[in-house]
Amino acid sequence: MVQLRLIFLGTSSSVPTIERNLSSIAILRGEELLLFDAGEGTQRQMLKAGIGFNRKTKIFITHFHGDHVIGLLGILQTMAMLNRDKPLDIYGPRGIAGFINYNSNYLKFELTYQVRIHGVKEGIVVKEKDYVVKACPAEHSVRDYAYLLEESDRPGVFYPERALELGVPKGVLWSKLQDGESINLGDKMITPHQVLGPKKPGRKIGISGDTRPNPRLSKFFSKADVIIFDSTYGQEYEDKAKDRLHSTAVEAAHVARDAGANLLILTHFSARYSDTSELVSQALKVHPNVMAASDLSVVDVPYRDSYD
Amino acid sequence: MVQLRLIFLGTSSSVPTIERNLSSIAILRGEELLLFDAGEGTQRQMLKAGIGFNRKTKIFITHFHGDHVIGLLGILQTMAMLNRDKPLDIYGPRGIAGFINYNSNYLKFELTYQVRIHGVKEGIVVKEKDYVVKACPAEHSVRDYAYLLEESDRPGVFYPERALELGVPKGVLWSKLQDGESINLGDKMITPHQVLGPKKPGRKIGISGDTRPNPRLSKFFSKADVIIFDSTYGQEYEDKAKDRLHSTAVEAAHVARDAGANLLILTHFSARYSDTSELVSQALKVHPNVMAASDLSVVDVPYRDSYD
Repeated sequence: MVQLRLIFLGTSSSVPTIERNLSSIAILRGEELLLFDAGEGTQRQMLKAGIGFNRKTKIFITHFHGDHVIGLLGILQTMAMLNRDKPLDIYGPRGIAGFINYNSNYLKFELTYQVRIHGVKEGIVVKEKDYVVKACPAEHSVRDYAYLLEESDRPGVFYPERALELGVPKGVLWSKLQDGESINLGDKMITPHQVLGPKKPGRKIGISGDTRPNPRLSKFFSKADVIIFDSTYGQEYEDKAKDRLHSTAVEAAHVARDAGANLLILTHFSARYSDTSELVSQALKVHPNVMAASDLSVVDVPYRDSYD
Repeated sequence: MVQLRLIFLGTSSSVPTIERNLSSIAILRGEELLLFDAGEGTQRQMLKAGIGFNRKTKIFITHFHGDHVIGLLGILQTMAMLNRDKPLDIYGPRGIAGFINYNSNYLKFELTYQVRIHGVKEGIVVKEKDYVVKACPAEHSVRDYAYLLEESDRPGVFYPERALELGVPKGVLWSKLQDGESINLGDKMITPHQVLGPKKPGRKIGISGDTRPNPRLSKFFSKADVIIFDSTYGQEYEDKAKDRLHSTAVEAAHVARDAGANLLILTHFSARYSDTSELVSQALKVHPNVMAASDLSVVDVPYRDSYD
């Protein structure tokens, strides 16, 4: 069991408000931090959330608008000031290395750790032992990627009576089978599927970046446990959403419904909404499970037993 | 009478804390904003302080370390988002234009207003009708300037009885004399000094930037009403202050005392000080009038009748 915790570090679009910082979403997966976007002020929000600067960390940038990326600079500087020693991986649209290198040199960050910069293309961006992160082009005024964190399937339920029937003694061999390894018992090979139920799904978290809604994103986010989606406007500003290549809450809900997602979390609100309950109400007419992110709100994502 | 209000937007050195944002000091002089440094998060602190983004504004940068200048980018972007129409003047060490232009282009700010960038050299940086801003090299690991806001002298007290003795009738001619203009009365010229007491001093506010203390700065800040000075460390870290080219609270107090300043305001505290009262106590042994800045604290600076 690995804990998967979403912490909303900034939930305002374009300009900050007194209540909302600029865009950033932290996913703590076990001890690892996956940070999606880093608007100005993100490092201070990380402090407030107690996240820390010396974890194993990957930072994903959706696109190069200032309100999504300026905070990266302060994070880099602070990690150096605090003598970070672990490498830092940063993923973003091609060209991100220029921005980081120019400013690191200009502002003399004197980095104490390795920064590994990865240009993102559609497809698998990160492949770890038990999860991947995928990117899909979003639809905005500049190159922009939506991301999907997708955990590997987990082994099914272990049936001890089947193991005993097959003559496997309780102990280390059970653990191996539970972890999905085949074992040899005398001249017999026992495979995990002989003693385990069907595999159980890992969790999927989708993050839209700034975008118009579209069928490609619905497909990309298929069966996600949580979709965190651009909800800059309410229905009354549908035209503005089209014009500025953002989404309304209702449009976000359509993506979530078409994707068959469980929970939709609205974020990236226009500064005009100090109260977002109306946006949630609008989205609830389309999708049954919707919440609005607020700064420093926390959502723990449980495992599902199956996708049905 | 022009109001002169200091608002401390950020008072932490190097890295922010939960309580303290990175460096920025706002001086509201009448309707005009003079902003000294703009660490990350400054725009949100401006919102909290109710300062607004469409005033007549001058921004002064002391030096190009990230914690003093990254917030400039968000201010530029937000001013564009809010359709600022007034030109913006930015002053800083030579090379500042490169930083602004690179990032404005990279992040596509689409500025709606003119940005006038001024490279700073020692001496008078700004000359307005009723004040100047001067720069003096500070002593830090990179090129760094201390600034002094110096108001022009104000006309002395008006003596109506002298005006009447000289035959000047009450009315518009009195106002002209009070404003420092000479007038013609028949074939006689009457000069202001015939009806006014000695001139009264304008106010002087000194801002140190990151620096070691030194006699040159004491001289630069001579007779200041307020000196806002680097106070990164307490006396127990005198060596660190030397090593990293910052100042202790006591060193700041020596500068204030040598300058004959009235009030010393300590700021730019190391993140290790959640309580700064000990630093104030240390400084009070050297200079009689000391306070510690905290985020969003406000100090209104009164006129003095004379420098004696």
